[in-house]
Amino acid sequence: MAQTVRAGILGGSGYAGAELLRLLSVHPHVEVAAVTSRQQAGRAVSEVFPSLRGYVDLGFEAVDSAALAKRCDVVFCAVPHGVAMHEAPALLEAGTRVVDLSADFRLADRERFEHWYATEHAAPSLLGEAVYGLPEVNGAAVREARLVASPGCYPTAVQLGLLPLLETGWAEPTGLIADAKSGVSGAGREAKTHLLYAEAGDSMQAYGVAGHRHLPEILQGLERASGGEVDLTFVPHLAPMIRGIHATGYALLRDTAEDVQALYERRYADAPFVDVLPPGSTPQTRSVRGGNFCRIAVHQPEGGRRAVVLSVIDNLVKGASGQAVQNMNLMFGLDEGAGLQAPALLP
Amino acid sequence: MAQTVRAGILGGSGYAGAELLRLLSVHPHVEVAAVTSRQQAGRAVSEVFPSLRGYVDLGFEAVDSAALAKRCDVVFCAVPHGVAMHEAPALLEAGTRVVDLSADFRLADRERFEHWYATEHAAPSLLGEAVYGLPEVNGAAVREARLVASPGCYPTAVQLGLLPLLETGWAEPTGLIADAKSGVSGAGREAKTHLLYAEAGDSMQAYGVAGHRHLPEILQGLERASGGEVDLTFVPHLAPMIRGIHATGYALLRDTAEDVQALYERRYADAPFVDVLPPGSTPQTRSVRGGNFCRIAVHQPEGGRRAVVLSVIDNLVKGASGQAVQNMNLMFGLDEGAGLQAPALLP
Amino acid sequence: MAQTVRAGILGGSGYAGAELLRLLSVHPHVEVAAVTSRQQAGRAVSEVFPSLRGYVDLGFEAVDSAALAKRCDVVFCAVPHGVAMHEAPALLEAGTRVVDLSADFRLADRERFEHWYATEHAAPSLLGEAVYGLPEVNGAAVREARLVASPGCYPTAVQLGLLPLLETGWAEPTGLIADAKSGVSGAGREAKTHLLYAEAGDSMQAYGVAGHRHLPEILQGLERASGGEVDLTFVPHLAPMIRGIHATGYALLRDTAEDVQALYERRYADAPFVDVLPPGSTPQTRSVRGGNFCRIAVHQPEGGRRAVVLSVIDNLVKGASGQAVQNMNLMFGLDEGAGLQAPALLP
Amino acid sequence: MAQTVRAGILGGSGYAGAELLRLLSVHPHVEVAAVTSRQQAGRAVSEVFPSLRGYVDLGFEAVDSAALAKRCDVVFCAVPHGVAMHEAPALLEAGTRVVDLSADFRLADRERFEHWYATEHAAPSLLGEAVYGLPEVNGAAVREARLVASPGCYPTAVQLGLLPLLETGWAEPTGLIADAKSGVSGAGREAKTHLLYAEAGDSMQAYGVAGHRHLPEILQGLERASGGEVDLTFVPHLAPMIRGIHATGYALLRDTAEDVQALYERRYADAPFVDVLPPGSTPQTRSVRGGNFCRIAVHQPEGGRRAVVLSVIDNLVKGASGQAVQNMNLMFGLDEGAGLQAPALLP
Repeated sequence: MAQTVRAGILGGSGYAGAELLRLLSVHPHVEVAAVTSRQQAGRAVSEVFPSLRGYVDLGFEAVDSAALAKRCDVVFCAVPHGVAMHEAPALLEAGTRVVDLSADFRLADRERFEHWYATEHAAPSLLGEAVYGLPEVNGAAVREARLVASPGCYPTAVQLGLLPLLETGWAEPTGLIADAKSGVSGAGREAKTHLLYAEAGDSMQAYGVAGHRHLPEILQGLERASGGEVDLTFVPHLAPMIRGIHATGYALLRDTAEDVQALYERRYADAPFVDVLPPGSTPQTRSVRGGNFCRIAVHQPEGGRRAVVLSVIDNLVKGASGQAVQNMNLMFGLDEGAGLQAPALLP
Repeated sequence: MAQTVRAGILGGSGYAGAELLRLLSVHPHVEVAAVTSRQQAGRAVSEVFPSLRGYVDLGFEAVDSAALAKRCDVVFCAVPHGVAMHEAPALLEAGTRVVDLSADFRLADRERFEHWYATEHAAPSLLGEAVYGLPEVNGAAVREARLVASPGCYPTAVQLGLLPLLETGWAEPTGLIADAKSGVSGAGREAKTHLLYAEAGDSMQAYGVAGHRHLPEILQGLERASGGEVDLTFVPHLAPMIRGIHATGYALLRDTAEDVQALYERRYADAPFVDVLPPGSTPQTRSVRGGNFCRIAVHQPEGGRRAVVLSVIDNLVKGASGQAVQNMNLMFGLDEGAGLQAPALLP
Repeated sequence: MAQTVRAGILGGSGYAGAELLRLLSVHPHVEVAAVTSRQQAGRAVSEVFPSLRGYVDLGFEAVDSAALAKRCDVVFCAVPHGVAMHEAPALLEAGTRVVDLSADFRLADRERFEHWYATEHAAPSLLGEAVYGLPEVNGAAVREARLVASPGCYPTAVQLGLLPLLETGWAEPTGLIADAKSGVSGAGREAKTHLLYAEAGDSMQAYGVAGHRHLPEILQGLERASGGEVDLTFVPHLAPMIRGIHATGYALLRDTAEDVQALYERRYADAPFVDVLPPGSTPQTRSVRGGNFCRIAVHQPEGGRRAVVLSVIDNLVKGASGQAVQNMNLMFGLDEGAGLQAPALLP
Repeated sequence: MAQTVRAGILGGSGYAGAELLRLLSVHPHVEVAAVTSRQQAGRAVSEVFPSLRGYVDLGFEAVDSAALAKRCDVVFCAVPHGVAMHEAPALLEAGTRVVDLSADFRLADRERFEHWYATEHAAPSLLGEAVYGLPEVNGAAVREARLVASPGCYPTAVQLGLLPLLETGWAEPTGLIADAKSGVSGAGREAKTHLLYAEAGDSMQAYGVAGHRHLPEILQGLERASGGEVDLTFVPHLAPMIRGIHATGYALLRDTAEDVQALYERRYADAPFVDVLPPGSTPQTRSVRGGNFCRIAVHQPEGGRRAVVLSVIDNLVKGASGQAVQNMNLMFGLDEGAGLQAPALLP
């Protein structure tokens, strides 16, 4: 296929931006046309990210969306929450497709968004059109989409872990628990004291117990899957590692005679990036480091009434930029895995 | 007080042994009389653990318990499971008290022990006498004990976290979940591939999901507290840190109107090593690194029906050697905190 | 001894401050009277450093030096460079002794200071009085001092490593090399991007190659020792660990027949916190983690012409707050090791 | 090019083997035909290395070299030292080319090998034929070679850093120093106590000061470059990171007026995997994590007489398996960078 997609990145100096550049710079069907960053405007990309020396010959621009639209077939929004909703309308109007990695278009319900993000939505009319870009659920819709809301990192790991049980009604939709552990890069590249090496190193800590912003996104996904209300307790933890999410899901099974392992294998048989491990396995986050996979193992300890689902992703790949590229591939009729074929880096 | 307790360590070349030496070598009322190690016999302690140069002037001995008994008022067993049950009878008969850090005397039920540890118990007659050394529960009994079974690391963190809810019946005794994350030192000092830096670093992994040996110990403790059967799902995870356990407990409350925070503060008001944090806190494992504390925070997210209890300990201190010293202090009428007064090492 | 020293800490919310609090809160002859912090004024110390819950019951104050002087026998300045020189004169005039952990009084030569720190010295008249607080060199002077300039972390490790060779003239004073590796806490607690876990983790990097501020301090010390000019190349590296400095020193020996090992053992025979390891050893930084020791090993690889000196310290203890306490002990006629007796935390 | 090279790996269950599999499984011109491992024979590759699930569908074989020869155009020897010299003769005789990642054919001088590796060489007649596979030096010879001795990790980093100064005679060949820091994966995947996470974590330690086996290999390379004798002190250190080598080289310049930066840029202008950084840079090892690059920065601190050369590689890629693939590419007339094009993983 001779097609080359011209891609732009809005907000390319954070970790999601760096990861988009890492993936897109060697993507066989993409040319990175422009990268913006308000903070780093004027600096060479390879100066900020020396790992990209020889791969990305661009500088960060302060350019606006209008200018981006002319040079790009697709724009990835890797900006903080609250920015993409201002930029997306103009981009779409100009015929440029948008993959938003922020939360702006993830929640279909405007009030839910405004409650959790404490800000008025600037483009509510697009909420109905935006496709929630979890390809394992919405692949067909993504193929037709102009605007894709690429899922958050925790929501990706938790949903892929619990969806099969809720879609089938095999698990109770109440009393669900998602205990998730994330590497520090999930918190972004902004300089904050609690993310310093000397603070986050050699230690573990829960946070956001009273209500993390990813909770409504997870609930929305699980409710769509179950077709009814869902009750979930979600506790994220900061772990002393750079990349990786380990989500441990707990659900009560309605019928312990069902073959849960077979259910998972069946559910993800056609999903190129979801890997259901053999019975008895426990996935390591490093088995997906740098790769776009979600590896899942399902257990029924003791009596078997409770399912324990272990799912791991790289928060920056399947949990952010890799999934965004997967969505772009679908939107442009490319092979779903184009540019995402490198194995994980282990050790 | 002029009393000096002569202490021996059986199996001093592992991490629990090293930690006992670190604590006892500067304990104001203890003289370390002997340290044994089959593997390291003949080597100086300070050669194996250079951090103890200038503190411990002993060599590892291959000596037997009989010889130890003559020189020691108390012997700490920091040997692998299955050894202490062979050594304890002779030590006790000789009048030496025993603090066992292994699992040999933790389970009061002989069959439960033999099932989980797949070995016949060599001293079943002592199971009735051995006191389970969680001072916050059994302090009075420990003071009178000849033989104390010092708790495991996970059981300490999980029990201290959930006990108040079960003792009072405020939480349902079923559907309990303990999602625990441990630093690598919890797995011991033996050379195993999966514990290598290049394997365990920058990664998270669950293990023992089908049934970890600490499960029956936790259940025994929770059942004693609740006075009835308890159903708990326990999932331990290996985290890329050296020390520390973070246990996240989930329990369904029977009455959401109760003041859970006040319950915890009341329950541990007299426990010098349990620290109930202010509402809204999330403890870091590093806040107890090297110290004998268990710090606990209790949350009721969303509707409040579910309690989320976060408890952290240093697995080698409150989860092993520090607690063993605390037990020894009680057994010999010393101040409960003697030798355990150093603050945690942060950062 | 019934004496209790009332100590104040100026700038207690950084890592040196936290470490002073950790050490002083259990020091047998010290009462912490006050802690200041402009940034954290009004907050409880134990809120900022939860490891100190139960140990320090003070709040951070915004108080000035004048107020501090009335309540303190000694004030530790753990402020950034350029502050202590403004505060010290008033403190001294009020009769309060001062241990300065910043660089303000380390360089006896005013011009050297003003060149490297690019600021005018506010109290040049005190430069002559200030004692450079490396107790292994200036112990006697420290005992008489009102104002002690406690050494920097790199200078402590490098000087203790190379001094014996320069004091005796056994090594050439030119062509010296100090290749040093430091944990991240050495860079302080301020939120800076390059110190984030996700930036500094799993990576090594040299910095300050063109000229690090610790270079003139090291040179001053080595020149005093050798009695002449010294030529040293100093390259610091940031290592992915929380605490610890490993300095590797290289020097050309004038006479390879000398017994260098014996020289080091003799030189530090009376230094309670310098530990010369047996021949062939290589010290680990963790062997001093949390302790006030400097452990040194000296090698003569191959022909023996070149000495390789390995010295390790904990940058926050012997490299900062521990050494400051050691100096205070000397200034007040206390036992040199009071409050500094805990072994290192290993593992 | 339609050519497909059938590759075998002798000893594929260590880190060099895992890394060869990661690279070769997505190499556009290679088919992995067989992987052997005595220890893991019978197990699926993807069971030992779950990161390769979906990429490598082979099992580890116990097969001998004779059998390998029939199925492979090239065999990579990723076995411990002392094995390849027994296997290579038969492979070569059968027409299979060999890339040896062990030390067996690196030292042209048989006595030097036998001294440092304390074993008799089993195939001394091949020592003359074997090409030392540092492509930046021996690229032309590698293209014609049947047997390539791929360099060690430290030798790669140190040589690439110092070669330009020695080839030109700009630096003195005596008094050279190479202070190198390596991640733990460089020590292999065998279970050894000192490589445990709880031992090697959060700590630094020098080792092999009296003489590391990579020293003669480095000396041989530098002597070939300088055309005369070379005197080098080499001190390796174990750093708490998984991958990466940071070599800091020190050399005395003969003429400080020369433009050293220009020399380095010129020397490596045609080397696709050596990246000379702009003046004033300090490379991070993470900037090459997972990539085949060596990034170099050269400094002349203070007077300028001494050159400080900072070079970083990923010990498993440019320091082992990536360089082996680079050599194979040259041997088979493929593009030198085929299969080695992925950017480093940062963060």
